[in-house]
Amino acid sequence: MTIESALVDGTGLIGTSAALALREKGVTVYLSDIDGRAVRLARELGAGREWAGEEADVAVIAVPPHLVGERLAELQKQGAARTYTDVASVKADPIADAERLGCDLTSYVPGHPLAGRERSGPAAARAELFQGRPWALCPGLRTDAEALRRARELVTLCGATAVTVGAAEHDSAVALVSHAPHLVASAMAASLQGGDDVALSLAGQGLRDVTRIAAGDPLLWQRILSGNAVAVAGVLDRIAADLAVAASALRSGDPAGVTDLLWRGVAGHGRIPGTPGCRDPAGSTGR
Amino acid sequence: MTIESALVDGTGLIGTSAALALREKGVTVYLSDIDGRAVRLARELGAGREWAGEEADVAVIAVPPHLVGERLAELQKQGAARTYTDVASVKADPIADAERLGCDLTSYVPGHPLAGRERSGPAAARAELFQGRPWALCPGLRTDAEALRRARELVTLCGATAVTVGAAEHDSAVALVSHAPHLVASAMAASLQGGDDVALSLAGQGLRDVTRIAAGDPLLWQRILSGNAVAVAGVLDRIAADLAVAASALRSGDPAGVTDLLWRGVAGHGRIPGTPGCRDPAGSTGR
Repeated sequence: MTIESALVDGTGLIGTSAALALREKGVTVYLSDIDGRAVRLARELGAGREWAGEEADVAVIAVPPHLVGERLAELQKQGAARTYTDVASVKADPIADAERLGCDLTSYVPGHPLAGRERSGPAAARAELFQGRPWALCPGLRTDAEALRRARELVTLCGATAVTVGAAEHDSAVALVSHAPHLVASAMAASLQGGDDVALSLAGQGLRDVTRIAAGDPLLWQRILSGNAVAVAGVLDRIAADLAVAASALRSGDPAGVTDLLWRGVAGHGRIPGTPGCRDPAGSTGR
Repeated sequence: MTIESALVDGTGLIGTSAALALREKGVTVYLSDIDGRAVRLARELGAGREWAGEEADVAVIAVPPHLVGERLAELQKQGAARTYTDVASVKADPIADAERLGCDLTSYVPGHPLAGRERSGPAAARAELFQGRPWALCPGLRTDAEALRRARELVTLCGATAVTVGAAEHDSAVALVSHAPHLVASAMAASLQGGDDVALSLAGQGLRDVTRIAAGDPLLWQRILSGNAVAVAGVLDRIAADLAVAASALRSGDPAGVTDLLWRGVAGHGRIPGTPGCRDPAGSTGR
């Protein structure tokens, strides 16, 4: 193991969860955040000690996507770590910011753990948040091999599985598997505002599952979606069209129009790793 | 307790689960199904014994919605039970069928447990399937008080909570909280067919939850949706419009259009009983 110390910059849900996971593996963790209360709470939860300028093996920048470039530039100026990574849900924009701000791109490995909760902040953090989850790493042409090796080690220490993918490919992938699903859940949940209390009292587990992620922080999600706007819009347009066609088929008493969507849904669901219908894409072992 | 015996007609997922729950409470359960293998499997799972024409206190008709009226007429002709109920996800159509076929409506209490699984058939049945779930009962003007009392007792024996509601109100409620969510999950899942393997390997728990129910049996769901077509279409149209507006806002770089949907999603999600934002509609105790 070459990661003996880590700086977690941004002690929200993701940063504090990573800090807790690293602490469990015996890594020395330094914590920093512009919000002093968030650092104190993370420290009290056992996530590490307050950062006082020590150089760490790796710095995990766990701030909203639009602030990643700026924090990377600042931390590199301070010589905070040997390797830098971030956890933002979009990758092309933060990388462009880093280039524009003249960051050293050899020591920076853009990253994104596919894990989260509907609640945010350090109090919601869990050491096991990343257990068994995919964690995208998007090294560029200039990324140093040693930096990539260290980023992979970080992912392993957090219990996740590294998936190496180009930044543009990452952003188009998460538009499909994460960002569009969030807005789909939001739209389904928003329609519940029009329901009466008896209707809501009939809610079962299906509705709860479909809408669970709609409880996420709107301001954070607005930033994520804005950073991946065109790709997300493309997915949403297809889904909106499918739903409009289904509505029209139902109205005109044409069952085939609905049955087609139901069957395509079964097939698409079967492509998720770990579901019965899945052929194990990308070598996943399934669950 | 006045229910000492029950006939479960249709030993699929719902029927066999009810049979198992009733067996655990010491009720004598008779099983029947047009598919002899389904009855044998249910019997081997301990769900009861094969029906040989005995009169039961209550008959649970657990067949697809379009067959409920026909089975009710047949069972009443045979004098199968003192009280009859069904478990179909739509209520207006089966009730209309029952009237048309000249069924005795005094002994029939239309019902619908809000519970299910993505898998179907007796092998997927579980005694605890209904535990803590709502179970709609839709008595009509002619329903006998004693029949309603017995139907409520059945719901309680299965561990569910009875919600009494008119048939039309029920159908419009489940369009919102069950049927539209199914097609929304299907449309999201269907879009995954276009994703490459790397994209799918980045799937997290959020996507799994949003699409879980899309794995349900398309033929069963086509029947359910056809029986509640206009109400479901209305909900789908609103959701499709919300998604199209969000896509357009994302394309034109207008974050407010997306943020509005995200906030409405948070508010709508908070109306589901048991979520942190919920004011406990209809006296639910929440979970």
